[in-house]
Amino acid sequence: MSNEAPIGIFDSGVGGLTVAREIFELLPSENVIYFGDVGRTPYGGRSKEIIKEFTRQDIAFLMEHKVKFIICACNSASSVALIDLKSDYEVEMIGVIEPGAKAAVERTKNGRIGIIGTHATVGSNAYARCVHELNPDLKVFSLACPLFVPLVEEGYVDKEATYLIAQDYLRTMKDVEIDTLVLGCTHYPLLKDVLADIMGDSVTLIDSGEETAREVYRLLSKSELINPGMSQSPVLEGEHQYFVSDVPDKFAQVATRFLGRMVDRITRVDISRY
Amino acid sequence: MSNEAPIGIFDSGVGGLTVAREIFELLPSENVIYFGDVGRTPYGGRSKEIIKEFTRQDIAFLMEHKVKFIICACNSASSVALIDLKSDYEVEMIGVIEPGAKAAVERTKNGRIGIIGTHATVGSNAYARCVHELNPDLKVFSLACPLFVPLVEEGYVDKEATYLIAQDYLRTMKDVEIDTLVLGCTHYPLLKDVLADIMGDSVTLIDSGEETAREVYRLLSKSELINPGMSQSPVLEGEHQYFVSDVPDKFAQVATRFLGRMVDRITRVDISRY
Repeated sequence: MSNEAPIGIFDSGVGGLTVAREIFELLPSENVIYFGDVGRTPYGGRSKEIIKEFTRQDIAFLMEHKVKFIICACNSASSVALIDLKSDYEVEMIGVIEPGAKAAVERTKNGRIGIIGTHATVGSNAYARCVHELNPDLKVFSLACPLFVPLVEEGYVDKEATYLIAQDYLRTMKDVEIDTLVLGCTHYPLLKDVLADIMGDSVTLIDSGEETAREVYRLLSKSELINPGMSQSPVLEGEHQYFVSDVPDKFAQVATRFLGRMVDRITRVDISRY
Repeated sequence: MSNEAPIGIFDSGVGGLTVAREIFELLPSENVIYFGDVGRTPYGGRSKEIIKEFTRQDIAFLMEHKVKFIICACNSASSVALIDLKSDYEVEMIGVIEPGAKAAVERTKNGRIGIIGTHATVGSNAYARCVHELNPDLKVFSLACPLFVPLVEEGYVDKEATYLIAQDYLRTMKDVEIDTLVLGCTHYPLLKDVLADIMGDSVTLIDSGEETAREVYRLLSKSELINPGMSQSPVLEGEHQYFVSDVPDKFAQVATRFLGRMVDRITRVDISRY
């Protein structure tokens, strides 16, 4: 395995770019290949069986690009598909669930953790299972917030309507007095300000993408797979390539909002042939 | 062609059920086969090319069931795909665009018509083209309201947040002083009260689904294809069957809200093999 090989990141659409952004920041020398399955987004409401088939194809596409590591940046795919698929490959793979769950377990003080995500993520119970493997005594409260994804994608992040919807959703989380809330969907970091405002200072927000990037750093270091560009001074900037399963226009537009920078080099692929 | 053959209705998901509801009301004796492509919903944000391929498969599925008439209840598919595909088949097909546009042309008094729909529907300019074919002097104003679909699907129809979002969207429609507004998306009839309230009494709302059902009645009568059960007293109730491209659970739940009655006989199909 070459240290210069790219890291592969895939997601059901644009959401995984919040994970990519954390990788770019923490590991600036890494070459990254991002695949966004925008032609079949969102995965969140679909059945386990369909999510598994889509995930298998996403991985197959990245494998063709000889990646050294794969990040499943989609919470829905991480929840219901990754565990069954990762043993089929030699390349190391992680999802966004374990890092988010681990961080929550480390940071909670009152032992009450909230998880918010899509229907698929919440329905899979993956975060709760992961938390309980680490500490069976913790209490976990899960809640689907399906409107957050379209609100974020439409740029409705600092509007009164979004605040009202978030208040509706989070009421039960406040009632059960959690002290740690896991943003179990890659779109949610864009709503951090609204969520922090509603939950108040006593609740710590965990960004699964941020935690995942830290875990990738740790795992690549351990396997001695960090790109050599990192040890140069100044560090060598890695290359970033984007692939999508539908026309790139809308992706380019939303990606700018998610990454905080313009995105070029977007290529369309026919994912159904994988 | 048998009069007892079913009418086929397809849509990218649950939205077409508002059209089905109008058909059930106007043509209670007709046997109806509904296909909802929930496994690949929504079509609205996808490319023309992908929508065309999906539409072709949806039609192929209905043809296998020997339908006597096909209704494309999806505005996005009607806008960008139907016109190119319908000539390939002998069975008569209509979309929801023409009936909606025709009704708007008939009812406007000040000659200023508004169209609201998904990005695909609005981007296709199909309603405007259709209006201008009927009367080139009319002014048409189109607007994408992408958050309406997820709001309706999540049951957010009579909430303050929905009202605020609708107000945001419709501000420009009020500014241009339309007197007729076409609900160019099958989900929007569920927001009729909110939209009517915001637009005021001087604006007529056109429900494309309702207009389409009337047109289907007219066309079936003309071709002498009305189900004979209609002439019995009391009229014989037709059979309704539902097919979906993913697990039926969520469909069953949302369908109840869209149809105002419980739905059973839902079968899953693998649409990718068509």
